[in-house]
Amino acid sequence: MKQADRNTALREQLIDAAERTIAENGLAAVKARDLAREVGCAVGTIYNVFEHLDELVLCVGSRTLAMLEAALAVPSPSRHGSADEAVADMVRLALAYLDFAAKHMVRWRALFEHRMSEARPLPEWFVEQQHRLFAQLERPLKALLPELDRNARRILARTVFSAVHGIVALGLEEKLVSLPLPDLAGQLAATVRAIAEGRDELRAIDRGDRPADPRRS
Amino acid sequence: MKQADRNTALREQLIDAAERTIAENGLAAVKARDLAREVGCAVGTIYNVFEHLDELVLCVGSRTLAMLEAALAVPSPSRHGSADEAVADMVRLALAYLDFAAKHMVRWRALFEHRMSEARPLPEWFVEQQHRLFAQLERPLKALLPELDRNARRILARTVFSAVHGIVALGLEEKLVSLPLPDLAGQLAATVRAIAEGRDELRAIDRGDRPADPRRS
Repeated sequence: MKQADRNTALREQLIDAAERTIAENGLAAVKARDLAREVGCAVGTIYNVFEHLDELVLCVGSRTLAMLEAALAVPSPSRHGSADEAVADMVRLALAYLDFAAKHMVRWRALFEHRMSEARPLPEWFVEQQHRLFAQLERPLKALLPELDRNARRILARTVFSAVHGIVALGLEEKLVSLPLPDLAGQLAATVRAIAEGRDELRAIDRGDRPADPRRS
Repeated sequence: MKQADRNTALREQLIDAAERTIAENGLAAVKARDLAREVGCAVGTIYNVFEHLDELVLCVGSRTLAMLEAALAVPSPSRHGSADEAVADMVRLALAYLDFAAKHMVRWRALFEHRMSEARPLPEWFVEQQHRLFAQLERPLKALLPELDRNARRILARTVFSAVHGIVALGLEEKLVSLPLPDLAGQLAATVRAIAEGRDELRAIDRGDRPADPRRS
């Protein structure tokens, strides 16, 4: 085996090992020493094939994002001929997200818990993969709010995702709400529908509406 | 000083020390050994005045909740004579929450990162304090959706809070969205207004709307 091939093989083994660790015990359990022992290499060798441990963790995150992408996909994307179809698609995405998070709780949580060390920026390829996921939410938003420019729509997609994520994350933590999953799904779907229904409020988002002047409405 | 007074004083010192640690370095930095050294007691003595370290961390959380309660309070609570007033109050609460989180990021984050060890339930007094906070959001929801029964309104208040929390948490993490604070505030306020505007969707939340049947809308 050539050195390049050996490196590729070692990378995959290390990602596999880190993936198992994260899926079973979460992000905090990922230690270079344990991973090296598991795949039978020296600790230092890890840094021949990964720039840093963050890169390895992001490779696992990338697999999680790919799983999520598959879970959110539909065989043939709807064309959103009507607003109702667009709303139904947003609800479908939100419920599929809840379903994915509930099924893959530990590795899904790891996606959000991970922070880059030393204030390193996220690598471009990872950001790109996130963008592809958000594009799924941008599509129905485009049908609902066709007058928004692309940048405004992108920001809004992230805001709507964040709202959905909050309901899913706190709901599954059962910290504030202890609801059976179907009830949580009902709350989530209704909130997404309410946001879509009240979308006139999202057309022109006022940037001057700052916390410093909370009484403004 | 009587033993009971000494214990009370030691509790306060330990809470102060844990509070400083959490506010500066986050939850992971809280170690019984360091706290004991800081207040000058034996490690074991901590467990004379606290049932477990979780109780101590919750006491710090309780101070954070009290600060948040003060930040969300208004001199004279509005009576929500109109739907517009109720919506404005919801927006005010959401923006005050964002403002608080931005100002007290580390200790606010600790509130949500903390999980009870050994699957202990949250103590009743802490749950009560959370309830008081949610009551602030239940008030405008009552004005907007007077036909909801108390339980449905309580669940909905938690759902709306979770959506707000998601926008604040992911927005401040700058993981998905990197927006200046005023823009984030604009996104948050518009989303809360949209939810309020689309509130017909929240009147009768369908419990059967489960992820297993995502095409139902």
